[in-house]
Amino acid sequence: MSDETYPPISAQLDDVAAAREEGRRKMDWALQHMPILSALREEFEAEKPFEGQRVGMAMHVEAKTANLVETLAVGGAEVAITGCNPLSTHDDVSAALDAHEDITSYAKRGVDDDEYYAAIEAVVDHEPTVTVDDGMDMVAAIHEDHPELIDSILGGCEETTTGVHRLRAMDADGALKYPVFAVNDTPMKRLFDNVHGTGESSLATIAMTTNLSWAGKNVVVGGYGYCGKGVAKKAAGQNANVIVTEVEPRRALEAHMEGYDVMPMAEAAEKADVVLTTTGNRDVVTAEHFERMKDGVLLANAGHFDVEVNLDELDDLAVDRYEARDGVEAYEMADGRRLNVVAEGRLVNLAAPIALGHPVEVMDQSFGVQAVAVRELVESAERSSADGGDPYDPGVHDLPDELDREVAEIKLEAEGVAHDELTADQEEYMGSWQHGT
Amino acid sequence: MSDETYPPISAQLDDVAAAREEGRRKMDWALQHMPILSALREEFEAEKPFEGQRVGMAMHVEAKTANLVETLAVGGAEVAITGCNPLSTHDDVSAALDAHEDITSYAKRGVDDDEYYAAIEAVVDHEPTVTVDDGMDMVAAIHEDHPELIDSILGGCEETTTGVHRLRAMDADGALKYPVFAVNDTPMKRLFDNVHGTGESSLATIAMTTNLSWAGKNVVVGGYGYCGKGVAKKAAGQNANVIVTEVEPRRALEAHMEGYDVMPMAEAAEKADVVLTTTGNRDVVTAEHFERMKDGVLLANAGHFDVEVNLDELDDLAVDRYEARDGVEAYEMADGRRLNVVAEGRLVNLAAPIALGHPVEVMDQSFGVQAVAVRELVESAERSSADGGDPYDPGVHDLPDELDREVAEIKLEAEGVAHDELTADQEEYMGSWQHGT
Amino acid sequence: MSDETYPPISAQLDDVAAAREEGRRKMDWALQHMPILSALREEFEAEKPFEGQRVGMAMHVEAKTANLVETLAVGGAEVAITGCNPLSTHDDVSAALDAHEDITSYAKRGVDDDEYYAAIEAVVDHEPTVTVDDGMDMVAAIHEDHPELIDSILGGCEETTTGVHRLRAMDADGALKYPVFAVNDTPMKRLFDNVHGTGESSLATIAMTTNLSWAGKNVVVGGYGYCGKGVAKKAAGQNANVIVTEVEPRRALEAHMEGYDVMPMAEAAEKADVVLTTTGNRDVVTAEHFERMKDGVLLANAGHFDVEVNLDELDDLAVDRYEARDGVEAYEMADGRRLNVVAEGRLVNLAAPIALGHPVEVMDQSFGVQAVAVRELVESAERSSADGGDPYDPGVHDLPDELDREVAEIKLEAEGVAHDELTADQEEYMGSWQHGT
Amino acid sequence: MSDETYPPISAQLDDVAAAREEGRRKMDWALQHMPILSALREEFEAEKPFEGQRVGMAMHVEAKTANLVETLAVGGAEVAITGCNPLSTHDDVSAALDAHEDITSYAKRGVDDDEYYAAIEAVVDHEPTVTVDDGMDMVAAIHEDHPELIDSILGGCEETTTGVHRLRAMDADGALKYPVFAVNDTPMKRLFDNVHGTGESSLATIAMTTNLSWAGKNVVVGGYGYCGKGVAKKAAGQNANVIVTEVEPRRALEAHMEGYDVMPMAEAAEKADVVLTTTGNRDVVTAEHFERMKDGVLLANAGHFDVEVNLDELDDLAVDRYEARDGVEAYEMADGRRLNVVAEGRLVNLAAPIALGHPVEVMDQSFGVQAVAVRELVESAERSSADGGDPYDPGVHDLPDELDREVAEIKLEAEGVAHDELTADQEEYMGSWQHGT
Repeated sequence: MSDETYPPISAQLDDVAAAREEGRRKMDWALQHMPILSALREEFEAEKPFEGQRVGMAMHVEAKTANLVETLAVGGAEVAITGCNPLSTHDDVSAALDAHEDITSYAKRGVDDDEYYAAIEAVVDHEPTVTVDDGMDMVAAIHEDHPELIDSILGGCEETTTGVHRLRAMDADGALKYPVFAVNDTPMKRLFDNVHGTGESSLATIAMTTNLSWAGKNVVVGGYGYCGKGVAKKAAGQNANVIVTEVEPRRALEAHMEGYDVMPMAEAAEKADVVLTTTGNRDVVTAEHFERMKDGVLLANAGHFDVEVNLDELDDLAVDRYEARDGVEAYEMADGRRLNVVAEGRLVNLAAPIALGHPVEVMDQSFGVQAVAVRELVESAERSSADGGDPYDPGVHDLPDELDREVAEIKLEAEGVAHDELTADQEEYMGSWQHGT
Repeated sequence: MSDETYPPISAQLDDVAAAREEGRRKMDWALQHMPILSALREEFEAEKPFEGQRVGMAMHVEAKTANLVETLAVGGAEVAITGCNPLSTHDDVSAALDAHEDITSYAKRGVDDDEYYAAIEAVVDHEPTVTVDDGMDMVAAIHEDHPELIDSILGGCEETTTGVHRLRAMDADGALKYPVFAVNDTPMKRLFDNVHGTGESSLATIAMTTNLSWAGKNVVVGGYGYCGKGVAKKAAGQNANVIVTEVEPRRALEAHMEGYDVMPMAEAAEKADVVLTTTGNRDVVTAEHFERMKDGVLLANAGHFDVEVNLDELDDLAVDRYEARDGVEAYEMADGRRLNVVAEGRLVNLAAPIALGHPVEVMDQSFGVQAVAVRELVESAERSSADGGDPYDPGVHDLPDELDREVAEIKLEAEGVAHDELTADQEEYMGSWQHGT
Repeated sequence: MSDETYPPISAQLDDVAAAREEGRRKMDWALQHMPILSALREEFEAEKPFEGQRVGMAMHVEAKTANLVETLAVGGAEVAITGCNPLSTHDDVSAALDAHEDITSYAKRGVDDDEYYAAIEAVVDHEPTVTVDDGMDMVAAIHEDHPELIDSILGGCEETTTGVHRLRAMDADGALKYPVFAVNDTPMKRLFDNVHGTGESSLATIAMTTNLSWAGKNVVVGGYGYCGKGVAKKAAGQNANVIVTEVEPRRALEAHMEGYDVMPMAEAAEKADVVLTTTGNRDVVTAEHFERMKDGVLLANAGHFDVEVNLDELDDLAVDRYEARDGVEAYEMADGRRLNVVAEGRLVNLAAPIALGHPVEVMDQSFGVQAVAVRELVESAERSSADGGDPYDPGVHDLPDELDREVAEIKLEAEGVAHDELTADQEEYMGSWQHGT
Repeated sequence: MSDETYPPISAQLDDVAAAREEGRRKMDWALQHMPILSALREEFEAEKPFEGQRVGMAMHVEAKTANLVETLAVGGAEVAITGCNPLSTHDDVSAALDAHEDITSYAKRGVDDDEYYAAIEAVVDHEPTVTVDDGMDMVAAIHEDHPELIDSILGGCEETTTGVHRLRAMDADGALKYPVFAVNDTPMKRLFDNVHGTGESSLATIAMTTNLSWAGKNVVVGGYGYCGKGVAKKAAGQNANVIVTEVEPRRALEAHMEGYDVMPMAEAAEKADVVLTTTGNRDVVTAEHFERMKDGVLLANAGHFDVEVNLDELDDLAVDRYEARDGVEAYEMADGRRLNVVAEGRLVNLAAPIALGHPVEVMDQSFGVQAVAVRELVESAERSSADGGDPYDPGVHDLPDELDREVAEIKLEAEGVAHDELTADQEEYMGSWQHGT
């Protein structure tokens, strides 16, 4: 990289027009199934809440995210974006975004480290007033290298568990200098993304990677948190015989009371036809388990990092190792057993060759929350300057509950699902109750 | 009632021996299916943690509770108990308890108001050092009429939602003078009692009261909190077509994403074969709904109070009203439609003629938590006098999480369910993660 | 018994009026939930298809059956009925039926053998032209003792598996002298009665007899025919962990592919919290299994005869035996384990003290088929005399498929469920397909 | 094509070695999950039941089928095979088969009509003694053009519904000159293939083609036969809200009693998020339905032919039509609604770009039945020549039940699932029962 400004994607592709057309096709498909963003887009287009704002983003640039980006742009924002992972960008989608007059996209697949950071720098050069992150790259770049921008930044949004944890650590150290919404922690994200999104997409990805069936299979689910519950429920719904492993006794009891078999991994390993980890911890499946497994077992991971199945230990035990199928690596043991690792033990619904990430509808919910969070940052600043009241302090903030609820309402309305409202009498009854009588 | 001391149950029955035998038979059956209390009983019998303590209780005196009472007594406590509702006492169980040398039971079914309070007074006369309540009668009696006892009281436990809410109100007013554990709020109670206990027992009670089937029925579940989720899940598990009504959009969305139909009650009422309310609120089903219902619909309530189905409005609309079946009252409309109210709209798994309350295993969990909560009150006082550390302050306290977990562990062990433990490396990994890296 | 005519129930009760009122109340409740019989009743009342016919019946005389009886009577038949089991009659319902001018009911609970057969004889004295049986008592009485009636009999209907098997044996021997419809074998009965009726009512009866929960329990289902499938499905729907035992490998595989654990009873016995047999065979649970069971296990039977759990062997092993709870007998082993037999190992949804038999809706389907079967016997005779065509030959007949379908249509219409019809083009397509092209 | 003999695949590929390696890798993966074929292979290898036989096959030549072919070859047969569809052959698998010294494979993807039939002719030239068909190509070629071979043919096996129907038509006309087993009709195929195979693979294929989720979706299942039941059950297991359309009232009632919504397609079309047809009939979804559908609906077919969704009518209504995504064609209506047809309305689990056909385990069951059926043809001939008994007559035959059971036993044993056996007493009890007592 020279010192020159890093160029947007449109300057980097050979056939920009074709890429834009293909990227737009992908975006259109997703948008068709994103009722929340569609509704917000309409609202933002009419009300232009982001007029005068500059949004700096570092996210996975693919069709679903692109619709969030465009939703902000139609709301009046100028958006600059780059990727948050060098391998997750779809160049065609990036080009389609870059075609928008209020959007500049620097995201490009396969960039090297220098390029990666140059692209972030290019986004920062737009002097964002709001940041939107999937892993706090933008927050970090500004705090570390451009503290001069902080005063004019209204705030940020963070999408991921990892990002939020790190931001909380910064916050605890007094190092976080502007307010950031922990979008990751909202009920709208947690309840649906993990249970339905991870559950369905992990199983479908494995089925279509292996051509295998779930019916009658012993499916060992490592961990019974939200993701584990989702995977267990969806696997049972395909007639698998679900076995759960856990370390927390009440979660173990929950799984037991649900009707699942619960046992230690050492015992489950012997029965497993499939092991799918969702714990967020390391070394859930290790040498002692590999030694007990049946020939042909599938090993996959639906947790964030690729540390749940200990592949180093597996590799040590193996006498041979080969690609048994696209997305499946077979580790052959000395006794002839083959242990099949799907998608290298990485997050299976993202890392398998045919993986598509979370379903569109699930991202619609997360991005709907992002969109109202950005709106809230802008509006809180306006409220603050209007009435002199308090904007959000620097630090990590939960999204106000009514905004999360608003997104739920938008979704329900889009799906044509009506629900009851509390009557005044009922509100009083609940109130009197909760405050004692 | 004269001024004389209120007599225990044994002095009030004609054939005490027969009652005791029958009561014991009921207790034995329950204990056989209460692995947690059985295990704690064994532990307490060996260690006598309650030696020197006097426990004053006001609870539903039936077989399940009786095993909690006896568990405390074998642990060294002197227990005095009376009922917390004049209609819920089983005299035979009360007599069986009273036969124990360390237990005095004043509970008797069908007492009048004077007798009810005289019995509470009789318990207070034992000068309890610990109170165990199901509706805070004991706490109230002591705070209002015997404040002199407060100094020697280590603390109390409260079983119900209502009781806990009122205690929190007292606490907020600075009126609660000793520590009370909100046993009602522990995960071990909330997760299992509401989902599995209410769900299963409500449906089985209705089925056996009506001789009707669930398959293919439109079952309208009012409210999608823990109870509503339990009822919906168990009804779907009997092949009902579940319809959910809600006022909170995210719960409505949760129900929708689960695959249930969600709609306002006004619309659901037209489709309903059964309506089962679980909201904790009043007027969930009212005149506007009754007018749209089909002939033969069943109306029942699984919420705490009998205010969810508005029977006054139903009675106003009805031209006739008769007992259609034991536990079912038919309200006949002018147009001939019959709306059938089960168990007078009161908590159906308790109030129907054949109702048995929560399943034994569910109460085992709640009472297991009660038992360790009492132990904690005693031990915290001992720790405090030993090391001069802090006992619990006056006020409402959540049960320490490790005690709730202990109960889960006991249950799992009793069921023969083993689970994994975190390794040191895993603990470190989780820790590093949670504190940021 | 003297030689005099056996008297109808009304002549045998003290307070006939009260009995009739109570019987009518029971019938009304049931009819309210019997849409098929209700619809047929309306049709029959208008068209009087049974004018001039005399129907002789031997069935369980309780509320559900009574509505079938009355449905035939309002259609113009004279009906005489008695019980098919001395213990299953509800005298009040019998009296309510007997109050109808076209019905004579001889059924009385607790009759001795002489009275039982005298009552059958009394029904035969009415010289029935159609018989309706639940166990072929009527067919047997006529063939054995009143062959002179056979010529004027149009045919019969048989409700039970047992009855149909015996009739087929008679038929094979050339001993069956008039046509009998095997109502038991129709899809409308088999698909719903066994799966939904047996499944739901067995589980609800056990839950309300024991006050126990299903969640997390190991429920061993003996046999995976229609009944076993129903029990397994409904138990899984209450979050039990279902274990299936089978002798037929394809059924075992079906259960396995459904996600259930499948194993021999000897192994299942060790895990069982509940064993529920549905095989139709004997000695499904025997000494070798009792020896391996856990303390507190429940043993129940949902198969027709009480031979599935071998109680003789259990009794031999037991050192004590006592009523642990109404409807539950505990067998205590030498090592202290208690094995709890529900309802004496007899058909649990009928024999438990609180049992109500099949749900009303399920019997509505069976009896709806009975009603159209009787109509078909009458109409076929009319068609035959009109066009000289063939009536049904003597022997066992399957009910014509279109009549079974008609009953399904009535039910769907009553429930407000519409469905598609084949277009002419579709019929042709299917036809061309099925006959080859 | 010249008159010369049609060459095997190995003579037609450029890099045969590479193809063989890749084909072998695919076969290995499949075989690892085909326990039935694996077990039979071992048995056949030891016993060589097919020694001296020549098997002529026309099937889809891909990894799963290839393992059946090789299983026959290791059992001593000489096998010649070609494809049964010009587009379903995997050349690499074909090459891997052809590498076997006892197998000649003529199957090649993308052949023209002349080549297709030349390849069949080439197989016939091997003078098969047994035929194995997937669509009766082999039977037809022999009966039409090589009747001289019929005398030496022991019999055939037919895999498909279509093939069996046509064979039955030939049989009815007296035109079928050797015995053919209707492998398609065995319980082992019907129960698992349709319910689990079609259900799981259709849903996974749609999910991975569209990146959409099932939770909360209105999924309209056209038809409630075995396939429809499978699709409905698996969709409900992913938390879809299932709506069933049917023409047969008892199936409609079955679906209703299962808890699904049942309605005519005209009504269902308005609610549908996804329509999936499984009827086997034509014009299940037509113009009147398209007109009522929501924007964004998915239309897919899991029935055999592409006639269920009437695409001609859809095309007439559309103002535009474009590829919305690989495997999804959007039809845009005049009012802007987009109706998305997946895989051109052809069998979705085969025709979508990413489709893999039935899961491996399901085909293992079907091919296991094929393998024992071929063995039975050979053994019956041996038995016949040994004892002069009857071999199978020319015509279509059901596979003897004990052979179907044998395959179930092999599968259960491979999965480590044991089951009970009838005792002599139990067999007698069942026998006495069935023959009357």
